[in-house]
Amino acid sequence: MSDTLNLVLFSGTADKLHAAATLAAGAAAMGQPVNILLQYWALDAFRTVRLDESAGLAWDAMADGASRPVKGTRAIPWMDTFRMAKELGEMTILACSGSLDVLGIDVSTLDPIVDTEGGIATFLLAADGGQIVFI
Amino acid sequence: MSDTLNLVLFSGTADKLHAAATLAAGAAAMGQPVNILLQYWALDAFRTVRLDESAGLAWDAMADGASRPVKGTRAIPWMDTFRMAKELGEMTILACSGSLDVLGIDVSTLDPIVDTEGGIATFLLAADGGQIVFI
Amino acid sequence: MSDTLNLVLFSGTADKLHAAATLAAGAAAMGQPVNILLQYWALDAFRTVRLDESAGLAWDAMADGASRPVKGTRAIPWMDTFRMAKELGEMTILACSGSLDVLGIDVSTLDPIVDTEGGIATFLLAADGGQIVFI
Repeated sequence: MSDTLNLVLFSGTADKLHAAATLAAGAAAMGQPVNILLQYWALDAFRTVRLDESAGLAWDAMADGASRPVKGTRAIPWMDTFRMAKELGEMTILACSGSLDVLGIDVSTLDPIVDTEGGIATFLLAADGGQIVFI
Repeated sequence: MSDTLNLVLFSGTADKLHAAATLAAGAAAMGQPVNILLQYWALDAFRTVRLDESAGLAWDAMADGASRPVKGTRAIPWMDTFRMAKELGEMTILACSGSLDVLGIDVSTLDPIVDTEGGIATFLLAADGGQIVFI
Repeated sequence: MSDTLNLVLFSGTADKLHAAATLAAGAAAMGQPVNILLQYWALDAFRTVRLDESAGLAWDAMADGASRPVKGTRAIPWMDTFRMAKELGEMTILACSGSLDVLGIDVSTLDPIVDTEGGIATFLLAADGGQIVFI
């Protein structure tokens, strides 16, 4: 089995993307290859035009009595952390063809950190039976 | 370790169920057995009476500036994709006994694609130490 | 590869925490060590002051036609299930340093079931290449 860390990113809020990026950066720093598939709202968040906006917070932040990020959500540096992960090690980011189609997004409108587009089979072949984390 | 792909499905929105079904179908097509546990809102979405309704979208779809599925959520064919996965390979779907109880659902009201009901121990024994993905 | 079950807990609603605790207890009962990292809203939910409040339900519970837990959300015994897991086997709970900082939480305000605080590197070193489940 491959020791690659395979991440399926589905969610598009700043807090969850930050959790994902932290995991990717940690694994990259420890020498594990990282293989990422962007689906639905995570894919949507990687559009260049959205990077300067706040991506919002998970529903859990709305609960009674929940803390709120003290520095505000714009200060959650999820994309900076992904860029750092890419510098630290081997990380490939694939835009899911099916999600591009459902959301009506052209791959050319995504941030250049995205390497290419492809389907679930492409992702699973690269995963090579290694573990998959869905975020 | 088993090469079975073990999925714990918790969420019940059409987009997330579709992401789960795509992963199940991809793994089944590549010859991996797929072992699924339905909990909470995923279990709820498999009730026969709900299959003709829209299951909604994840909270992330509500964010400022998010794309919306261009064809509407009814067009997200999550159950069709699960049915395809079952034809493509070996896939077992277990309804979580604890969630049936908490939600007050009778197992006979679920779609027949669900094979049986059981607890977390049944699921983990079938998983046999293989990887678990929580969706 | 380690047979430890490594859980990254991100979500803070009672239903998802219960699903996580059930998985942890099942694995502990079967002799697998369980290594948990608390991030964001899961970390927030472990504050002592919040344990007597309802932690709410996932967004999926808001969907049209969704069932509602018949006994109410206060009756979802997620913390009791974590305490049971700790008695059943070997389970370590780490509070994520980065999340403590972003949310402005002091580690001394968390329930004593939390063992210590640390970063993603500490968590990944303990994981030792074993499987990671993100909840």
